[in-house]
Amino acid sequence: MSPAPEVPEGPSPQKVFDMLFAYQRTAALGAAIELDLFRVIGEEPGNAASIARRCRASERGTRILCDFLAIEGLLNKNDGNYSNTQTSAMFLDSRSPASVASTAVFLGNPTIRAPFEHLAEIVRTGHTTLPGEGTVEPNNPVWVEFAHSMAPMMGPMAAPLGEIVLNGRQGPVVVLDIAAGHGLFGIEVAKQNPQARVTAVDWAAVLEVASANAKKAGVGDRYETKPGSAFDVEYGGPYDIVLLTNFLHHFDPPTCVTLMKKVRAALKKGGVAAALEFVPNEDRISPPMAAAFSMTMLAGTKAGDAYTFRELEAMYKEAGFSDVTGHPVPTGPHTVVAGYAV
Amino acid sequence: MSPAPEVPEGPSPQKVFDMLFAYQRTAALGAAIELDLFRVIGEEPGNAASIARRCRASERGTRILCDFLAIEGLLNKNDGNYSNTQTSAMFLDSRSPASVASTAVFLGNPTIRAPFEHLAEIVRTGHTTLPGEGTVEPNNPVWVEFAHSMAPMMGPMAAPLGEIVLNGRQGPVVVLDIAAGHGLFGIEVAKQNPQARVTAVDWAAVLEVASANAKKAGVGDRYETKPGSAFDVEYGGPYDIVLLTNFLHHFDPPTCVTLMKKVRAALKKGGVAAALEFVPNEDRISPPMAAAFSMTMLAGTKAGDAYTFRELEAMYKEAGFSDVTGHPVPTGPHTVVAGYAV
Repeated sequence: MSPAPEVPEGPSPQKVFDMLFAYQRTAALGAAIELDLFRVIGEEPGNAASIARRCRASERGTRILCDFLAIEGLLNKNDGNYSNTQTSAMFLDSRSPASVASTAVFLGNPTIRAPFEHLAEIVRTGHTTLPGEGTVEPNNPVWVEFAHSMAPMMGPMAAPLGEIVLNGRQGPVVVLDIAAGHGLFGIEVAKQNPQARVTAVDWAAVLEVASANAKKAGVGDRYETKPGSAFDVEYGGPYDIVLLTNFLHHFDPPTCVTLMKKVRAALKKGGVAAALEFVPNEDRISPPMAAAFSMTMLAGTKAGDAYTFRELEAMYKEAGFSDVTGHPVPTGPHTVVAGYAV
Repeated sequence: MSPAPEVPEGPSPQKVFDMLFAYQRTAALGAAIELDLFRVIGEEPGNAASIARRCRASERGTRILCDFLAIEGLLNKNDGNYSNTQTSAMFLDSRSPASVASTAVFLGNPTIRAPFEHLAEIVRTGHTTLPGEGTVEPNNPVWVEFAHSMAPMMGPMAAPLGEIVLNGRQGPVVVLDIAAGHGLFGIEVAKQNPQARVTAVDWAAVLEVASANAKKAGVGDRYETKPGSAFDVEYGGPYDIVLLTNFLHHFDPPTCVTLMKKVRAALKKGGVAAALEFVPNEDRISPPMAAAFSMTMLAGTKAGDAYTFRELEAMYKEAGFSDVTGHPVPTGPHTVVAGYAV
């Protein structure tokens, strides 16, 4: 384990003020998405007056918002005219297939945001201020919104995950997709292998979104659902592949091991369980996005975390898996951790 | 006017997610300050368990918070032990005279933060969702908190401002400090010139803080107060120096000109009016901190802004000032704009 690099700068209050005002960045991006500003500018760059007219907003507000986004690098500004950067054109213009605008809606959900108003208390007690299990409380409506809005953020991870779990495999495979959410990952496996059959587990209201997505993707006839808690529902099987995407981080290690034992029992011998996770290095402070995700779990859950590969490997092994491997996904901050049922 | 630099990167969702999660940085720093974490670590670096014990907090919460702050560069982490960076030791350890911890309390004030929950609406209408004039509504209690907590952020600007307005001047000078707040700026002039007499204008409850600070600084016998609105109160005079610190940005240009005419009428011929302001370049997107301040004015006021030097110069001239000059303060993001009564 290499030590974290010393911060080289001399003392400066700049970084401190930057963090004290950081909430304005989230608010500014949220407002721009709500106003569909990046589509308006993508359709035709212009000055504040022209953009304001087309956004049905005030010129003062539009100018100050556009300048703020230019300071942040999400707009170009030249001689008073604003245009999209490559990043905003691809990920924020709502006409772009890769637009993550809906993700902003989910991440702005009060269930996700509210605990951060009480973060000192959460650090004191060690768990979320949300009732019960927090975001993973049974039938929490936040997961319906997740299913509706997080697909664009997760989309780029689907193809690599499908390739890792199928590993070139042709012919019939049966797949269990636990905590399926939008269903994207199981659906991708069904698209990559035309003989794959997928069973999705999640809360009933969430599975309606997944089923609709499966139909839209043309794999609805190979798509079944099992509504209920991943901890309680009968999985059926045996399966060749079990997907556990963005799920283990909500729970403490003993709970994860309990779940992984249930998963192993539902797998054929040699079948693979693949978790999609934020996996920080052993130093727990790199890479930044995966490591910082533990803060989201501190605020929103009772005992969840962003686990290191060693911690995940230990859980897999305790649950009876072998040959546990990690595969960083090149298209996002996630890692696929795969283990084989002994 | 030089065009803003094109953002050189290819498209990447990283910057987008960074902004969507930015609010977590404000929350994390606020929680650490509330727990006095930087003092505890400053007294003795240690691992999460040791720091948690001394902060009376959970180990899980403390570890995740410390890791988050290490990712942000506000803590060092080596082999599981956390220590302050130079920046956090100087500006966040509450034992440090330069600590800005109280500033975090002011910036977290609901009056300041709440409008950002409605930023799209504010951009549409062009003004704050706060009632009336927003943060500058008469006797808004936010300014008492400002007076109590913002002195550490403004402190580094006081000495340069005093030097600019006194410009080596010895002997008796009479000074009017408009919107005095904590009183720091007028007090500094009184400290630099032992024959200076200062009259401070602000709401009565705010002036109690300024008067107490003047006594603490040993200049209480040369310090008077005039409670009321800067627009309505009789200034008296004539004065050699009028200070207008962090004030003009709350109002639209015609209102600023009205005020500046009143200021000029209270100045001796050749007297100086000195505004301390966030002054962006003509492109309005640099330097970043001064330019981004217009967002705070959009959210909190009816018509305020961070004005460029040309705009401020025009207001001064319209109000009867000449020889308007800008002096960037080397110790902070502010600029002193000085003009002389004709």
